[in-house]
Amino acid sequence: MSTPRTPTIGLFGLGAFGRLILRHLGPHFPLTVHDPVHHDSAPPERAAACDIVILAVPVAAMAETCAAIAPHLRPGTLVVDVGSVKIEPARVMQQTLPAHVQIVGTHPLFGPQSARDGITGRNIAVCPVRGRAHLRIAAFLRRVLGLRVILTTPDAHDREAAVVQGLTHLIARVLVEMEPLPGRMTTASYARLMEAIDMVRGDPPGVLAAIETANPHARPVRDRFFATAAAVARRFESGDAGGEDQRRRSRRALIG
Amino acid sequence: MSTPRTPTIGLFGLGAFGRLILRHLGPHFPLTVHDPVHHDSAPPERAAACDIVILAVPVAAMAETCAAIAPHLRPGTLVVDVGSVKIEPARVMQQTLPAHVQIVGTHPLFGPQSARDGITGRNIAVCPVRGRAHLRIAAFLRRVLGLRVILTTPDAHDREAAVVQGLTHLIARVLVEMEPLPGRMTTASYARLMEAIDMVRGDPPGVLAAIETANPHARPVRDRFFATAAAVARRFESGDAGGEDQRRRSRRALIG
Repeated sequence: MSTPRTPTIGLFGLGAFGRLILRHLGPHFPLTVHDPVHHDSAPPERAAACDIVILAVPVAAMAETCAAIAPHLRPGTLVVDVGSVKIEPARVMQQTLPAHVQIVGTHPLFGPQSARDGITGRNIAVCPVRGRAHLRIAAFLRRVLGLRVILTTPDAHDREAAVVQGLTHLIARVLVEMEPLPGRMTTASYARLMEAIDMVRGDPPGVLAAIETANPHARPVRDRFFATAAAVARRFESGDAGGEDQRRRSRRALIG
Repeated sequence: MSTPRTPTIGLFGLGAFGRLILRHLGPHFPLTVHDPVHHDSAPPERAAACDIVILAVPVAAMAETCAAIAPHLRPGTLVVDVGSVKIEPARVMQQTLPAHVQIVGTHPLFGPQSARDGITGRNIAVCPVRGRAHLRIAAFLRRVLGLRVILTTPDAHDREAAVVQGLTHLIARVLVEMEPLPGRMTTASYARLMEAIDMVRGDPPGVLAAIETANPHARPVRDRFFATAAAVARRFESGDAGGEDQRRRSRRALIG
């Protein structure tokens, strides 16, 4: 009887997130990295021939990357993506990758900025796409990396991410464009809001594009945010910011 | 020679913030509290006859409160308000209170929620309105309560608060009205945003009304937020969420 061999990992993409993967998976697996920007990285055929292939490329580059690696993937290989949306990458991988590979979509709900002090306890969404490899992936992420694994579907993921990331990044983007913002006369809630912005302001533009435009649920959520905001602002403009209640109170607060 | 007597404090209003004042000033000063809702509280004339009178009433009730206490204030009394805006209360106190009292506007930039674990290191804005009593007030707030005192003018205060509080409370109000929001598949930045909301969601409606409608700078800031948001959303809708940059990258990321 032979002990099971540690699987080899082929990592495509050495952007900010690729480097984070390298840091956290490097101690556990032999990694072969390909990134066309890094001329000394491994040739793509070699990275594609590993047991597990991780696609850490922008969502917009997913189709081209899949087409390019497809001929080099061996039977039984597991292909995993880490994109911020899941419907579109799952569809692309499903359509482009050969039937003899398994597919799992993942979305680590953290980035280089928010994972600076470690990733233990952070969330990761895992979506089975083809085959049952998501089970051992989830077990590894939980037991070895200490992540909180959320098993979900690409559609349920994108629906929730449209609020969690879509709204947060929209608000952050708007506030960043309104800078300089006050930094002296601050409240605790404003300080939390500024922390939220600082965590996402450094994200590469591709992340914002994926979150806001490659998620079909993002626009309806944005539209609802704007409609609600307009209704709230109209109440403020008409002097009623919970105003009726307020006037009742002040009459009661009258002295004498 | 007599040692200076500890000044007496008359507190008007026992709402959430009045109770916070009671908790933090009670150990240092003899307090006389008046609140018409509490029938067993002191009569207003007695609270108004103290050395320092603190008005912890809604901004909308400031004019009526000032008119009611004016006849009972003794020469040399210091009147202090704690409202979330400063231009309007300063104007009202200036116009309504007798010339023989001193006036200081303050805005403690914390509330019962955000001060739950103490107020040390929290911010408080102090605006001199009439007389020089702001100097000993600021010294007390710094040395005894450990607050970070920001000496400013009512106009400079309201200008900064229009962003710090106006935007934060607007965003919080909109998100609260969009509830239920996801709570499972969260990111660190989204968690910070939710914390910011939770800190202000319990504020009495009068606070929101003051912040959004009694601050003349709030509406222009809101308008700028909406204009910026609309421009950002238009870029998303046209597929350009930093998209140009993104497409350039993905072409470069092509394999082979």
